[in-house]
Amino acid sequence: MKLWIIGAYGIVSTTAMVGGKNLEKGNIGKTGLVSELPWFEGIEKFAPLRFEFGGHDIRPLKNAYEAAIEHWNLNRHYDINLLENVKEELKRINAKKGTALNCGSGIEELGEIETLDNLTLSEIVERIEKDIKEFADEETVVINVASTEPLPAKSDYHESLDKFEEMIENDEKKYATASMLYAYASLKLGIPYANFTPSVGSSIPALKELAEERKVPHAGNDGKTGETLVKTTLAPMFLYRNLKVLGWMSYNILGDLDGKVLSHRDNKESKVVSKDRVLEKVLGYSPYSITEIQFFPSLVDNKTAFDFIHFEGFLGTKMKFYFIWDGIDAIVAAPLLIDIARFLLFAKKKGISGVVKEMGFFFKSPMDTNVVNTHEQFKILKRWFEELI
Amino acid sequence: MKLWIIGAYGIVSTTAMVGGKNLEKGNIGKTGLVSELPWFEGIEKFAPLRFEFGGHDIRPLKNAYEAAIEHWNLNRHYDINLLENVKEELKRINAKKGTALNCGSGIEELGEIETLDNLTLSEIVERIEKDIKEFADEETVVINVASTEPLPAKSDYHESLDKFEEMIENDEKKYATASMLYAYASLKLGIPYANFTPSVGSSIPALKELAEERKVPHAGNDGKTGETLVKTTLAPMFLYRNLKVLGWMSYNILGDLDGKVLSHRDNKESKVVSKDRVLEKVLGYSPYSITEIQFFPSLVDNKTAFDFIHFEGFLGTKMKFYFIWDGIDAIVAAPLLIDIARFLLFAKKKGISGVVKEMGFFFKSPMDTNVVNTHEQFKILKRWFEELI
Amino acid sequence: MKLWIIGAYGIVSTTAMVGGKNLEKGNIGKTGLVSELPWFEGIEKFAPLRFEFGGHDIRPLKNAYEAAIEHWNLNRHYDINLLENVKEELKRINAKKGTALNCGSGIEELGEIETLDNLTLSEIVERIEKDIKEFADEETVVINVASTEPLPAKSDYHESLDKFEEMIENDEKKYATASMLYAYASLKLGIPYANFTPSVGSSIPALKELAEERKVPHAGNDGKTGETLVKTTLAPMFLYRNLKVLGWMSYNILGDLDGKVLSHRDNKESKVVSKDRVLEKVLGYSPYSITEIQFFPSLVDNKTAFDFIHFEGFLGTKMKFYFIWDGIDAIVAAPLLIDIARFLLFAKKKGISGVVKEMGFFFKSPMDTNVVNTHEQFKILKRWFEELI
Amino acid sequence: MKLWIIGAYGIVSTTAMVGGKNLEKGNIGKTGLVSELPWFEGIEKFAPLRFEFGGHDIRPLKNAYEAAIEHWNLNRHYDINLLENVKEELKRINAKKGTALNCGSGIEELGEIETLDNLTLSEIVERIEKDIKEFADEETVVINVASTEPLPAKSDYHESLDKFEEMIENDEKKYATASMLYAYASLKLGIPYANFTPSVGSSIPALKELAEERKVPHAGNDGKTGETLVKTTLAPMFLYRNLKVLGWMSYNILGDLDGKVLSHRDNKESKVVSKDRVLEKVLGYSPYSITEIQFFPSLVDNKTAFDFIHFEGFLGTKMKFYFIWDGIDAIVAAPLLIDIARFLLFAKKKGISGVVKEMGFFFKSPMDTNVVNTHEQFKILKRWFEELI
Repeated sequence: MKLWIIGAYGIVSTTAMVGGKNLEKGNIGKTGLVSELPWFEGIEKFAPLRFEFGGHDIRPLKNAYEAAIEHWNLNRHYDINLLENVKEELKRINAKKGTALNCGSGIEELGEIETLDNLTLSEIVERIEKDIKEFADEETVVINVASTEPLPAKSDYHESLDKFEEMIENDEKKYATASMLYAYASLKLGIPYANFTPSVGSSIPALKELAEERKVPHAGNDGKTGETLVKTTLAPMFLYRNLKVLGWMSYNILGDLDGKVLSHRDNKESKVVSKDRVLEKVLGYSPYSITEIQFFPSLVDNKTAFDFIHFEGFLGTKMKFYFIWDGIDAIVAAPLLIDIARFLLFAKKKGISGVVKEMGFFFKSPMDTNVVNTHEQFKILKRWFEELI
Repeated sequence: MKLWIIGAYGIVSTTAMVGGKNLEKGNIGKTGLVSELPWFEGIEKFAPLRFEFGGHDIRPLKNAYEAAIEHWNLNRHYDINLLENVKEELKRINAKKGTALNCGSGIEELGEIETLDNLTLSEIVERIEKDIKEFADEETVVINVASTEPLPAKSDYHESLDKFEEMIENDEKKYATASMLYAYASLKLGIPYANFTPSVGSSIPALKELAEERKVPHAGNDGKTGETLVKTTLAPMFLYRNLKVLGWMSYNILGDLDGKVLSHRDNKESKVVSKDRVLEKVLGYSPYSITEIQFFPSLVDNKTAFDFIHFEGFLGTKMKFYFIWDGIDAIVAAPLLIDIARFLLFAKKKGISGVVKEMGFFFKSPMDTNVVNTHEQFKILKRWFEELI
Repeated sequence: MKLWIIGAYGIVSTTAMVGGKNLEKGNIGKTGLVSELPWFEGIEKFAPLRFEFGGHDIRPLKNAYEAAIEHWNLNRHYDINLLENVKEELKRINAKKGTALNCGSGIEELGEIETLDNLTLSEIVERIEKDIKEFADEETVVINVASTEPLPAKSDYHESLDKFEEMIENDEKKYATASMLYAYASLKLGIPYANFTPSVGSSIPALKELAEERKVPHAGNDGKTGETLVKTTLAPMFLYRNLKVLGWMSYNILGDLDGKVLSHRDNKESKVVSKDRVLEKVLGYSPYSITEIQFFPSLVDNKTAFDFIHFEGFLGTKMKFYFIWDGIDAIVAAPLLIDIARFLLFAKKKGISGVVKEMGFFFKSPMDTNVVNTHEQFKILKRWFEELI
Repeated sequence: MKLWIIGAYGIVSTTAMVGGKNLEKGNIGKTGLVSELPWFEGIEKFAPLRFEFGGHDIRPLKNAYEAAIEHWNLNRHYDINLLENVKEELKRINAKKGTALNCGSGIEELGEIETLDNLTLSEIVERIEKDIKEFADEETVVINVASTEPLPAKSDYHESLDKFEEMIENDEKKYATASMLYAYASLKLGIPYANFTPSVGSSIPALKELAEERKVPHAGNDGKTGETLVKTTLAPMFLYRNLKVLGWMSYNILGDLDGKVLSHRDNKESKVVSKDRVLEKVLGYSPYSITEIQFFPSLVDNKTAFDFIHFEGFLGTKMKFYFIWDGIDAIVAAPLLIDIARFLLFAKKKGISGVVKEMGFFFKSPMDTNVVNTHEQFKILKRWFEELI
């Protein structure tokens, strides 16, 4: 199958490429790949573990190998031999120049960038479409892992496909963001699109309409890795036992470009102390909660989360629970790119179109569903697959 | 409803009594009570939150108030006013002298004890039956929270009801343990029995046969509180994401009589480093694991668990997860006594008999099922209730 | 001895009062009291463990008992009998109405307040002096534990005693803060003054001059409790072993009035990510550091700190250290009030005047010294005492 | 300088070799080296950072490079380039066949071994002496990092030098252990000896006598790395603040040969729950304590320690402190080998003989001193050096 990755030179992308090509060669096991669990047997007929990679990026690097080695030198997050094994393949992956429209001030942190953003909206879309078209075939999926954008300016242009296309025609750049344009181009070409970031992507009514019209499946938003994965697995325990969560502190630190972009970004959800929607969806009420993310340079991609749960039990007695997640973000995220692409391709071949809400298992803010409990999500994914296969 | 508690003067029992009587008076909320979750609406018609308590114990205290105040002074585990509120009611609860047959050397730690154990097996059983009969009515459940016994000597006497009664007749004390005798007496009287401890209780074929014969429901073993509750909630996450658990360390410390009994007991599962069966049941394989429990006097009943999970992700990269559970064991356990009693009474009134394996949610080693995943257990309990109500 | 406490109705003050009066009656041990360590034998001749308490506050409560019971109900931070033991004594402690001049918006959180702040500066100072004078004798110490003020507006008025008194005369309220006025009044009356908060207190040149002139000892600032205490004890280990600290995260959560005031206060050192001066003073360089404090209501005074230290060892290898401090702030702070008062009284009787920098052991930002290593501070305190006694 | 290392093929040794040779070449910084702190300026004249390595081992490997690469493959504990940089140098280091006399059953875990132990005691000593002599010059130090031995059989043979030599002569193998023989050979040759393990080494009266007679300095026992380092740094805080330690739990896990040897070793201090002498020495009393070490294979040399401190403060209130040490044992230990060798060589050149108790800073059980507080030890080391230099 073919993966077109937005943000192709990022750490998640290059880690997925290294993994994908090593899987192909049988150099590594299948740890981390959800789609290789016994319950998903049969998926290989629809989406075999053979990969071709392409994508867009805004950093003018030579090729994916140059990007991969840069990330590896900072993180040493896997055995270097695995990179050397696929050096030639990665050298042949050259990302096309992309758009960073309304991606906020955070992208300054990426260093030198080159974008299409001096063009008009319709020129940008045309270029993106052309790039993807040249690469794509029937077995292609587009997936967005570019840095998180600020929330887009609200506009009626997002509310219907006609309006959206009017926005492009009128070159109303203020209301468009990069992730929308990529999603638009993919769906228009009939290619499944997944949004692994919290950016808006295909989640606006206009693009949902497009997906339905073109009969393409799409999914998102925001890959569920690390702290939220644990939180949505653990919080149900308090619910089932009728233990009242008095407060939940989630404090995340990470280095890396991602950490930098987040720490600068204009619209970082600065609600340092805020009602946490994930907890509300699991628990049915909204406990006091803190959700924070800070830059900690020496950790690079070794995202570390500190959680503290204060809860009340029988007779009003308070008790405590602490956890520390010491993970490597790209290592947790990369296999999910492959999983998501496989399930989307499977969906497409099975004639599914529109939002695949049964793929909520992979996302922090799954589209069109309130189910965030990891266990229920997994059951839903399994059942969906069983029924289709 | 009426609860006859084996080990009536223990901290879990007296905490349940304080809670039960305060619930009755509307002094406290329903936090900690599973049976009060919205999914179990309707249970109050079968098992209202009104309680009468009785039980057996081997410590010659005056009454349950004396026991409760002793535990409170060491633990201060709830607002003292809640105890004072129900002082008179607890003073009226006088445990009958019980048996500690083959309960191991650990019970030395309980201080002065008085037992029936100089009598013959049939005399002991007769006495126990008489005590329970005097107390019981149609709304009664027996629940065992006495200190953990050593594993019983293996014997054919446990294999059928006839054999079991032959053992009693022949006064073959070597093969009987206290928990068996209590279970035998309860079931014979047609009273539902639950085993909240890891002791053998009603889990031998002989007593399962008796339960079927008398058409009585029973459940066990070993209340799932603390570290195992978290473990069976969290471990599925690693499974769903195909993350390989390389090792799982579980280190528990507690003070209190329980801690003392455990630290001395003849048959403490000393498999300090051992394959952990709970993990195997969830994960489908048996990772390296350490499960240990140690005495730490100053914590009293404030059981603290330290867990470390070493796991492997994509590309073979190792990552880490730590958690600390800082709970009060009796506070977590006490409401479950009430829950279990209510569900068993509900089951009886609905004509259910034998092992209620759908109540596995409450137990570390649920009888007759391999489902230990907390989420699946909860779903099973919910569905079972929905279908019966 | 006599203690006049600024913020007499706060949790630290009332906990110190409960402790002081119970110590007097021999009801409790001396745990937590530095001055009762064997190295300080002899101090009791200068400052015996017999106490009279008074103070200023801005909350119009009836007496210290009313304040104490309010704090106790929220925190249950000690055995209630200890409060009941000294109920009558605490009922006789009535704080005088104080000033909250330039104390920031945070004090809104205190609820209803009554202050002297409609008076002129000279009237305020006169009132404060009168209140203290009526209470004080030769054995009196004033100590400030009122909520943290914002940084004062910079002004030449702080630079000399003459200027400071000119400010009072001219009623230049903009440049004065409550803590300065209290410190001024105390020192002018020849009474030793300690500043247990980060407020400016006696640390401006004008007041240091006054202390020298009146030959009064004084000390501050900011009681070293909790996370900073651990940090200044542990950081030297990294220095001694030449392990390079790459980053140090300190994340603190607490509830209580203090937490509220801090979370609102105008001038909260919002340097969420900043060079940490304590670390620089210990290590000789300034590692990346995060020092943050957040409100977490259910914890009340149970201040919890999460620290993560990323450090580099031999061959450039990175390693990790985590700690969690789960303390009760008032319990750690209260005995230090008594200690500080005793050492200041001892100093006064030994003819010491000006800043007692040897008392740096008790403070986060000790005046006139750069020694923040807990171990060195303790040695200095011991040596100072040994030489004087 | 020259280092003769007992256990030359172990992970600590080879890491020290890789570090030493890279230091020589200026490839790495001096992080982790105590002797390179500013307070020890001048040491380079006595013990420059130029190294020649040799040693004994019982594993029949080809050379130190083969050993180093084996350890690196399991641990990846430093940048592989650092090993490649010094490949040729390490290939030239060939350990001589050593003794494992009375080293317990644990060494079975080392796989194939070859020892001198079929020889008589005097033949073994002769061989060891010959090996060392061929390597040594005036600038040589011997240091023992071989796996921990069981406690030796008690005997009068250890009480004086005459007796010890009588033991050798009589070939009383039962009473000799490998570490004694190495220490004997070194000291007899006038070469400073350090014991980085808890094995008996030079700590018996006989060998102390020999050191005095030959005017050689020696030091030990047991390198202070990891959990004990933190404990002896942190425990003083509780002392200084008069906070009563109610209990201290120390739970250590590690993989690697060391972990295996420890888990099997005959004489593992199985005092799982025991009075901890280090705490007693710091605190002046002996709190309840747990000190445990368990094998956890996937961690390899990534020794992880979990500590929990339960303490009592003012008014009898209990509080909690937790820490996790996530270190790489060899990375912490290796530079100390170099430090110890340098300080011993410095001592020798300054005419110091016998136990250098001022080097207690480096050891868990420093000989001839009760000072275990890390801060005091560092002060003592500094002062000793300042006075001699």
